[in-house]
Amino acid sequence: MEKIRIGIVGYGNLGRGVELSLMQNPDMELVAVFSRRDPNTLTLLTEAASAVHMDDILAYEEKIDVMILCGGSATDLPTQSPEVARHFNMIDSFDTHAHVNDHYARVDEMAKLGGTVGIISVGWDPGLFSLNRLYGEAVLPQGETFTFWGPGLSQGHSDAIRRVEGVENGVQYTVPIESAVEKARQGQGADLTTRDKHLRQCYVVAKAGADTAKIEETIKQMPNYFADYDTEVHFVTAEELATNHSKMPHGGFVIRSGETGQSQSQNKQVIEYQLKEDSNPEFTASVLVCYARAAHRLSKAGESGARTVFDIAPALLSMKSNEQLRAEML
Amino acid sequence: MEKIRIGIVGYGNLGRGVELSLMQNPDMELVAVFSRRDPNTLTLLTEAASAVHMDDILAYEEKIDVMILCGGSATDLPTQSPEVARHFNMIDSFDTHAHVNDHYARVDEMAKLGGTVGIISVGWDPGLFSLNRLYGEAVLPQGETFTFWGPGLSQGHSDAIRRVEGVENGVQYTVPIESAVEKARQGQGADLTTRDKHLRQCYVVAKAGADTAKIEETIKQMPNYFADYDTEVHFVTAEELATNHSKMPHGGFVIRSGETGQSQSQNKQVIEYQLKEDSNPEFTASVLVCYARAAHRLSKAGESGARTVFDIAPALLSMKSNEQLRAEML
Repeated sequence: MEKIRIGIVGYGNLGRGVELSLMQNPDMELVAVFSRRDPNTLTLLTEAASAVHMDDILAYEEKIDVMILCGGSATDLPTQSPEVARHFNMIDSFDTHAHVNDHYARVDEMAKLGGTVGIISVGWDPGLFSLNRLYGEAVLPQGETFTFWGPGLSQGHSDAIRRVEGVENGVQYTVPIESAVEKARQGQGADLTTRDKHLRQCYVVAKAGADTAKIEETIKQMPNYFADYDTEVHFVTAEELATNHSKMPHGGFVIRSGETGQSQSQNKQVIEYQLKEDSNPEFTASVLVCYARAAHRLSKAGESGARTVFDIAPALLSMKSNEQLRAEML
Repeated sequence: MEKIRIGIVGYGNLGRGVELSLMQNPDMELVAVFSRRDPNTLTLLTEAASAVHMDDILAYEEKIDVMILCGGSATDLPTQSPEVARHFNMIDSFDTHAHVNDHYARVDEMAKLGGTVGIISVGWDPGLFSLNRLYGEAVLPQGETFTFWGPGLSQGHSDAIRRVEGVENGVQYTVPIESAVEKARQGQGADLTTRDKHLRQCYVVAKAGADTAKIEETIKQMPNYFADYDTEVHFVTAEELATNHSKMPHGGFVIRSGETGQSQSQNKQVIEYQLKEDSNPEFTASVLVCYARAAHRLSKAGESGARTVFDIAPALLSMKSNEQLRAEML
């Protein structure tokens, strides 16, 4: 079998997660990792793959079937995704919900020009959670959908803590509040506030001599990030932080609670989807990789343009044939 | 907006569930219910719809966009699905796993001849559970998938109880065993036996003067149905059965427990999908209805042949436009 030739753009936690995931997918092979850093400074895990400077990416047009973009949504992907889609099938994990239709339009234009397929906003949220929001509402049109995140490490909130004066280092965990999850399951979640749904737990290393009371207050009052939540601030040593808080777990729930039947005798129906990830970047990477398989197949079938997870038939994600899927999994 | 015109074939619990579900989907309308019974004996909930004898179904070729088949997999669907697919787009809930590829081939042949789309094996298992088995394995190729059913009423096992000598009436609940579910979540489910995974609870009304000890023994030793399980038999009065056991709840779990990362530092990743249905037929019906929307759209796009849930892009199930889905749900 000819393998699907993959390129990785960006080699941080997510890019490395993609490299690891490719090792679990025998129908794919990593050809090259592209980075803005000096390629000589990158140490890949895959012996057969090359580290290449971003400036040389076009030399790989005939050598790579799908590029998996592993940059950030704030500054990398808005320009990188359309540029790459102009020349390669590609997958990204663009997650700025408010700008997703703009991003879609930019990728769609370039992918159509290039005759490529670009699947955007792939991962678990957006991604698998989005799918479950859609399936839940389609199956139970009368009902409510709730998404809870965590328990898990939030990169954005951890960064916000680290910018506070007097803070040496820190991490933030988003924790769903069990009573709110239970209300959502019961279909009684309509009145849940932001504060009701999630708790924010911060583990902070203060600089020597810093005013910890002031740090705590500054964090708790930070608008957008913490002010609307119940926030716990725990001060720990640098050693404790390194020992107990260096992993990147995450997860959460999508709950659809609905009713079927006649108004005088309604039946409650609950669909619940839950993820428990010990490593958020490795999980996200694994989702990107199976959607790369779909992009390759759609491209080979002559399709082009932007897509999201909503547009991808599930069978396209699997290594198995359609007949095998029906026999083994249906 | 022109509504999708729906026909229901078979008017038992599932057919009535489809009728109720259509009332929650404003882009669809019920045109007619087809039955082998005398149409005058059917009392529909939908005033605008007609009750029609099965023999007259072809008179509706121009009047119905999608037929939803609500017969049983043992005797109705093997012949009915291909026959209906020859003339109409159609959805069925064929659930005899061992024969699914044969059924697919028969429907595919007739649907291609008729220029129709036939989506088979739609519901929750097969159906939504199948989707989650596929998504789980595609995202986490290294891992194990477990399906647990219940707590829920099993029609097949209830029927088996009722055939036992001395039994007046009875129902059977399939109950997943919590310790086994927990093992599956931990990725330690490889050794679970049939007996470890599910318990069978029977509520039985004995005929006057019947030997209850013999009934209990006969049930517990029944091959295929009960012998491989721990089975509880509770004798109740006809009134208790009617009061406490007349609903048809069901549900269950699909759990994918996998690992990502390097062998020396693997990360556990768990995907769990759970359904809690107060009414199994109404839930199954709701799934059938949203797949009818997909069949109609595929047919309008010029496609024909058999499909399963694996082949259907999620966006096709929703009333919302692709742009709206991206903005609201991605």
